[in-house]
Amino acid sequence: MPTVSISVRPEHAVARLDRRLFGSFVEHLGRCVYGGIYEPGHPSADEDGFRRDVVDLVTELGVSTVRYPGGNFVSGYRWEDGVGPRENRPVRRDLAWHVRETNQIGLDEFAAWTRLTGVELMMAVNLGTRGIAEALDLLEYTNGEPGTALADQRVANGSPAPHGVRMWCLGNEMDGPWQTGYMTADEYGRLAARTGAAMKQADSGLQLVVCGSSGSSMPTFGEWERTVLGHAYDVVDYISCHAYYQDHGDRASFLASSVDMDRFITTVVTAADHVQQLRGSDRQIALSFDEWNVWDLTGWQVIEAQVAADEKAGRAVPWPIAPRQLEDTYTVTDAVVVGSLLITMLRRHDRVRAASLAQLVNVIAPIMTEPGGPAWRQTTFYPFALTSRLAAGTVLAPLVDCPTMPTATFGDVPVVDVAATFDDETGRAAVFLVNRRQDAPTSVRIDLAELGATRVVAAHVLHDDDPTAQNTLADPDRVTPAPLVCTVTDDGALLVELPPISWAAIELAR
Amino acid sequence: MPTVSISVRPEHAVARLDRRLFGSFVEHLGRCVYGGIYEPGHPSADEDGFRRDVVDLVTELGVSTVRYPGGNFVSGYRWEDGVGPRENRPVRRDLAWHVRETNQIGLDEFAAWTRLTGVELMMAVNLGTRGIAEALDLLEYTNGEPGTALADQRVANGSPAPHGVRMWCLGNEMDGPWQTGYMTADEYGRLAARTGAAMKQADSGLQLVVCGSSGSSMPTFGEWERTVLGHAYDVVDYISCHAYYQDHGDRASFLASSVDMDRFITTVVTAADHVQQLRGSDRQIALSFDEWNVWDLTGWQVIEAQVAADEKAGRAVPWPIAPRQLEDTYTVTDAVVVGSLLITMLRRHDRVRAASLAQLVNVIAPIMTEPGGPAWRQTTFYPFALTSRLAAGTVLAPLVDCPTMPTATFGDVPVVDVAATFDDETGRAAVFLVNRRQDAPTSVRIDLAELGATRVVAAHVLHDDDPTAQNTLADPDRVTPAPLVCTVTDDGALLVELPPISWAAIELAR
Amino acid sequence: MPTVSISVRPEHAVARLDRRLFGSFVEHLGRCVYGGIYEPGHPSADEDGFRRDVVDLVTELGVSTVRYPGGNFVSGYRWEDGVGPRENRPVRRDLAWHVRETNQIGLDEFAAWTRLTGVELMMAVNLGTRGIAEALDLLEYTNGEPGTALADQRVANGSPAPHGVRMWCLGNEMDGPWQTGYMTADEYGRLAARTGAAMKQADSGLQLVVCGSSGSSMPTFGEWERTVLGHAYDVVDYISCHAYYQDHGDRASFLASSVDMDRFITTVVTAADHVQQLRGSDRQIALSFDEWNVWDLTGWQVIEAQVAADEKAGRAVPWPIAPRQLEDTYTVTDAVVVGSLLITMLRRHDRVRAASLAQLVNVIAPIMTEPGGPAWRQTTFYPFALTSRLAAGTVLAPLVDCPTMPTATFGDVPVVDVAATFDDETGRAAVFLVNRRQDAPTSVRIDLAELGATRVVAAHVLHDDDPTAQNTLADPDRVTPAPLVCTVTDDGALLVELPPISWAAIELAR
Repeated sequence: MPTVSISVRPEHAVARLDRRLFGSFVEHLGRCVYGGIYEPGHPSADEDGFRRDVVDLVTELGVSTVRYPGGNFVSGYRWEDGVGPRENRPVRRDLAWHVRETNQIGLDEFAAWTRLTGVELMMAVNLGTRGIAEALDLLEYTNGEPGTALADQRVANGSPAPHGVRMWCLGNEMDGPWQTGYMTADEYGRLAARTGAAMKQADSGLQLVVCGSSGSSMPTFGEWERTVLGHAYDVVDYISCHAYYQDHGDRASFLASSVDMDRFITTVVTAADHVQQLRGSDRQIALSFDEWNVWDLTGWQVIEAQVAADEKAGRAVPWPIAPRQLEDTYTVTDAVVVGSLLITMLRRHDRVRAASLAQLVNVIAPIMTEPGGPAWRQTTFYPFALTSRLAAGTVLAPLVDCPTMPTATFGDVPVVDVAATFDDETGRAAVFLVNRRQDAPTSVRIDLAELGATRVVAAHVLHDDDPTAQNTLADPDRVTPAPLVCTVTDDGALLVELPPISWAAIELAR
Repeated sequence: MPTVSISVRPEHAVARLDRRLFGSFVEHLGRCVYGGIYEPGHPSADEDGFRRDVVDLVTELGVSTVRYPGGNFVSGYRWEDGVGPRENRPVRRDLAWHVRETNQIGLDEFAAWTRLTGVELMMAVNLGTRGIAEALDLLEYTNGEPGTALADQRVANGSPAPHGVRMWCLGNEMDGPWQTGYMTADEYGRLAARTGAAMKQADSGLQLVVCGSSGSSMPTFGEWERTVLGHAYDVVDYISCHAYYQDHGDRASFLASSVDMDRFITTVVTAADHVQQLRGSDRQIALSFDEWNVWDLTGWQVIEAQVAADEKAGRAVPWPIAPRQLEDTYTVTDAVVVGSLLITMLRRHDRVRAASLAQLVNVIAPIMTEPGGPAWRQTTFYPFALTSRLAAGTVLAPLVDCPTMPTATFGDVPVVDVAATFDDETGRAAVFLVNRRQDAPTSVRIDLAELGATRVVAAHVLHDDDPTAQNTLADPDRVTPAPLVCTVTDDGALLVELPPISWAAIELAR
Repeated sequence: MPTVSISVRPEHAVARLDRRLFGSFVEHLGRCVYGGIYEPGHPSADEDGFRRDVVDLVTELGVSTVRYPGGNFVSGYRWEDGVGPRENRPVRRDLAWHVRETNQIGLDEFAAWTRLTGVELMMAVNLGTRGIAEALDLLEYTNGEPGTALADQRVANGSPAPHGVRMWCLGNEMDGPWQTGYMTADEYGRLAARTGAAMKQADSGLQLVVCGSSGSSMPTFGEWERTVLGHAYDVVDYISCHAYYQDHGDRASFLASSVDMDRFITTVVTAADHVQQLRGSDRQIALSFDEWNVWDLTGWQVIEAQVAADEKAGRAVPWPIAPRQLEDTYTVTDAVVVGSLLITMLRRHDRVRAASLAQLVNVIAPIMTEPGGPAWRQTTFYPFALTSRLAAGTVLAPLVDCPTMPTATFGDVPVVDVAATFDDETGRAAVFLVNRRQDAPTSVRIDLAELGATRVVAAHVLHDDDPTAQNTLADPDRVTPAPLVCTVTDDGALLVELPPISWAAIELAR
């Protein structure tokens, strides 16, 4: 007898799927750009130096938008440094990651890469050390029709057509003390409102993302959103949410990370809707989880502390170029959590209308590369790729009848979470499941009768008997999805057994 | 028996006339500059491309100061773009009017044009996207004696003598959401105070204009003035007032527009004097109506809405160069209102010490031009030109004993308004009158005995039996002033009959 | 019988001496740089144009750090103007002192001069007209290792090694209405916090000085410190104090100036420690008296008023280059006050950890020069040079049993003040004394028994029978220290008689 019973019905509809939910993020950080998407001389590199093996994996990953060029990096970035003849581009210090930036890849190259991969380019402007004027210049260079000095400069630099960027972030994590030029909510709210208004004066068709909190643990979380939106509500379309999760030595709580994300969403939604009511606006603000992932911050914090200690002692601290930074290797457990976070964002897709997995290559990334060597898929690649490929049509948040398990951080949480999609036109459906139990499999019964899509086309499960199993350069395919056995009952229900710590996706048709 | 009785006496003296009251305004907008004052190749153009027919009309109009280069335009303007060799000047997007600016006319050319026309140049600095440093640079370039890099750059650009600009606007309409970089009153007040202080550090002889409200209908009207002056009182000399009037389908109220202007003045004066008292200052702030006119905003709002709709739909929106924008054609009724507004500013000349009719050529302007063709006078040209030519000496605000007429917007208003001037040295006087009645003429008796100037030198009346009569390219002289019949009584009074909807000026001598 | 009894004991220890207490200040002002430290063609000038006679006097003066390049000057300064080929450097207007700056000396030249003199370079960034980005660029140019565009630019400009500046001022006197871009405490506190955080992001080993009040007579004195530190506490190491004293026609009060300085210190300390408590920080903020001296402001105020009057009247006001400005000639009384202020800073050395005598050459300076002629020591040179040379080891604040004298400004003040230092390693001690009495000498008994250093190595007294005696070009050695007669008693005490208005230093050994 199954312990979990799920009923997937059309009335559980949340929203039509917006593929911006499957965005990712390329920051000038570590080897994400240099040695990641770009490695001239690599056997797979094209004439522009882009690794085609990475392009293929990006395509397979099913990424929709890519946020660029940061992240913390953007708050000290001068976009002009990255355009024009490469030999004239300056080497700069990047304070965010204590490295040097060669600017050999800039806006025009990255826009070309997004055309190559077919993804939508999503840009961020620097509001850490710059302001309205520079944001307007960047916008004109990026999107302007030829016939003005800046647009003509882009043409001269080899990009005759406007890049047509529609989605723009107004800075990055401006509440964070680590952010160059970080601000109070009032300061940032006003700057964002003024900058956003000016950008929409240039093109009212843009979609603007205002910075929400850098995380749910920030001391001003919630209040920041309310204050910032109090200033900028009328000129923005999205508010950003950033969420990183890690195992602090308590795997049960870690597996329940999406409970935090769910609460995060509720907090931001209430703040946004509160402001909406006060202003009497008829526009609702959407959420953009434009940084989310599993990330073990400990390693980076140790490095930062060492740099600070060296600097205070007067010891020379190097400013390397594209070093290996934040190159987390993900376990199958991490991948299950990633899958679970996607389930939560699908369930809250009425408000979470965009998201960016941070990041795309090498830096806390689903795709890894070796200089001159291969590219491979981390464990986290699979839940993202399968969700992106299978989700279509209308997103559903099915009801779950399910036992709970105790966690230190979140109390009792359901052992299973689920989201589904159904495409009216094709009659195709998809169900995404996570099993948070560590000790035993979970039997699940899924009633699809009312949906009418009961034929299993394919079913995939991500699991390993070793919850710390990883994909590495030496063993890149250690963890991959396996077929999941599905039994169809006489009354059109599906019976599956989810192994402990697993994520699954079932593709169905009429 | 006359229905209106006016007594013009020396004790009605308001203030000595400051000719800055007869200023106008040239913004880089539509065809005001390009195709307006400047049209190389036009038959009347001089070697600098300036239309001499326009210069002649400007002289005839009697303009004192000209405000430049905006207006909304200035809030995104980089003055450097408009100086130096023309072939190097960039084409820029102007967000304010959704056009491209070629920068073929800039500071040095416009300063040359003001020398040609004999008007005083009044400048505005960009506080929308720029700050103190750029304002100081512009000031040094404009006024600096040779011997510094910026002043020497001006010399090299062909202007050896400093332009000697004394009157500077600290930005433009910074309370308006349409303004690039618009601000709260506290933000703007502080920026204006800091910028103004720095400019006076360079030259304490400058006269600075701080932005008041963009209009009396702004939600923060009055409070804005109080807050801004609370920050900037000590460093500014004028506060700006902007007032545009239009016929919203109720001609009686429209004819009484100056009642709104009068209340506007009182509101700003009370705010300014309140701050003066709080600070214990012995300096009074003057008002600069540096944008005022009749303007039918409807046409522009339709265009703006269409642009926004196209942008949101992703349709291409052109950025034209010097298109026909805001080319209102004025009726004789509009001209009567313009004349009436001048009467109000004369009556309040103790505080309204400067004004700029917005604008000078083609753009809601008294002077119109046709490319390659003629220039002509709109109806509004006449009351301005006559007032500027006849007003001299001391301004008087005579008492009027007068019936009222009902208006929907302003309640009962006097049918006639009047202002006068008297020049002790020449013994000349001038009386300016408006008749707001639409249905019938008004008989007026003017007692000049105490003034001693009772000889009528000339008398002019602006009126048309068709209140919508206009001057156009096809019929440029449809509306012109006509002689007004004046009868002198035995006791030295003047009897005139003002036709319905009319404005009149009477020139007198001892 | 001596009237004053002093006991110098080890338990009076205040702090280990930080030689940054003996800093000075070179601003681009008057003839401090041009014609002061730099005079190509002068007989003593080296190949870089630096006057070696001045270098020798700076060395003799015993200066530790030198603050550069301002002062009020910095608030309009663009450091880029002062680097690179000299022939390309622009001449700029300096609004602070109404002069022209030729930029022939800039960062690289001044850094070379500090290497020549062996002093530590202490820099200030411009927060009047500039912000975070420019501060970061200056920091990178100054201190960056080769391999970035800005550091490589420095190398190309002839300074291969980083200048290694550790101590940075975040702007200058930002509370002063005379300061270009002056701000409220909240505005400045936030800007300082953001700029400081960004600079420490680049190098957490920097020591940052936040602007305190421009003087104890500022209307926001104390509140300014509290507010600014409320924003910037965590990112700064010092708060600046500026103190200038002059004889307002009451010599007794003038001689008691250090009483004001002492209260000044207490006010700032309480403000800083209050913020520390509120934040629960374990870091204490130090005080940097980075402008202090005797200065007769009257002369400058007269000049400023004349300039303003000329500008308002439209009279041409010249912008001279390196004129004679603030060239105060100091009396022996001024020197006694300078010595007395040093005694106070030593006594409060637990918190006053840095100071800069303003300024070094020609401008209210201990060193004067004549173009093409000699350099000489003002009266104030001597107490500074002797204190800097003799102070070592641990600073002591001995107890004084002493009669008082009445002053109009400060009430009753002790006639004598004293500070001492003792160096455990060498067994050397120094005692610094001031006698504020004008009418009579003061007998002093100094008990050194517990210190164990009772042998008088040398003793110096600065005094002149004419309290207005000065050193001038014509008579450069009118006032110099003379030997002070010391009698040692049987029980190891020292008996000295301090002449009226005198300062003394006694060097002792075991």
